[in-house]
Amino acid sequence: MTRQTQSDNRKAVAQHFLLPDAALTLWPGWLNADASHALQTRLIAELAWRQEQIRIYGKTVKIPRQQVWMGESHCSYQYSGVRFEPTPWHPAVQQLCQQVSDATTSAFNCVLLNLYANGQDHMGWHADDEPELGMAPLIASLSLGASRRFDLRHRTLSHRLQLQLDNGSLLLMAGACQQHWQHSLPKQRRVAAPRLNLTFRYITPVC
Amino acid sequence: MTRQTQSDNRKAVAQHFLLPDAALTLWPGWLNADASHALQTRLIAELAWRQEQIRIYGKTVKIPRQQVWMGESHCSYQYSGVRFEPTPWHPAVQQLCQQVSDATTSAFNCVLLNLYANGQDHMGWHADDEPELGMAPLIASLSLGASRRFDLRHRTLSHRLQLQLDNGSLLLMAGACQQHWQHSLPKQRRVAAPRLNLTFRYITPVC
Repeated sequence: MTRQTQSDNRKAVAQHFLLPDAALTLWPGWLNADASHALQTRLIAELAWRQEQIRIYGKTVKIPRQQVWMGESHCSYQYSGVRFEPTPWHPAVQQLCQQVSDATTSAFNCVLLNLYANGQDHMGWHADDEPELGMAPLIASLSLGASRRFDLRHRTLSHRLQLQLDNGSLLLMAGACQQHWQHSLPKQRRVAAPRLNLTFRYITPVC
Repeated sequence: MTRQTQSDNRKAVAQHFLLPDAALTLWPGWLNADASHALQTRLIAELAWRQEQIRIYGKTVKIPRQQVWMGESHCSYQYSGVRFEPTPWHPAVQQLCQQVSDATTSAFNCVLLNLYANGQDHMGWHADDEPELGMAPLIASLSLGASRRFDLRHRTLSHRLQLQLDNGSLLLMAGACQQHWQHSLPKQRRVAAPRLNLTFRYITPVC
């Protein structure tokens, strides 16, 4: 797996979005198409994907996507009332985590992988604001596979931003984004191909 | 008509949106509610509103809103193949133009006033990129009356921004916004009240 350089494709130039209470940077084509495709194929085949069940309004429902929670052993993670222990690093993901850390000059030590089989799979409005992630967490989101819409909405102001997350793109969400904005991956019925999304995070080790 | 100060309402604090190829600043409550309402009522009553006809695909159609083009005498303006000569300044609009110039530290000498009677009135995707406005024109947009959605989309990248333009808000569009982005005011069937929008511009006098 090799990183695409800016000289390969002008799309690798960073796009900056400074919004009230949030700072986003998007690198389209951060991984080139071949590397993205190979990585997606390998991770879909080699990881133990789970369609988790969560409780919503007293009902147990399956989430509309498959997940793997991965990272350092201390990085347990609570989501919709369920605590998940991390699966150990897959070597390709660990290498990728280091590359994302280098590219963003930020530390990451765990990752939530979400597999959206097609445009029916989705994620509703939420923020990555779990207490484990600390104040103003940095989230680095790598997209592999089908292009999908990614929506953000401010919690109190009536503003929305709609991005297109293409194959190989890296999106860094910074500032108070998780505190003041929510994001979602809406259904897109015409999308037939899968998208694999890796959101790298940092959880402080317990002393 | 008095300007609202920041101490009146924290909403008067500027909100900045720095996007690829565009810089927007929004001052919600730049005019307070009373001043906005009084100004809207006066301008609706006192201006000679026209529902212009334009040619689209060979057909002559009425635009879905009413307009007045106003400003310095040299500021003629071509729009969808029709040239409009400016109506002389209404004193309240001229005073407002000076206040907008002061607030944005930018010169303006003409204004397109659009009256949207209700949520059926709208404006399609376009940019304020007429040659008269020069390179990278500054557009200052004051909203009076009903809150309406204001959408922006990048011409080549697949990004969109959706703002809510409330009564009394001032939006400054700067940078290469008119070159690289389009904007629209979509229909909103549930909106029953009118919105009056003043977009201040600058046209260089001919020597």
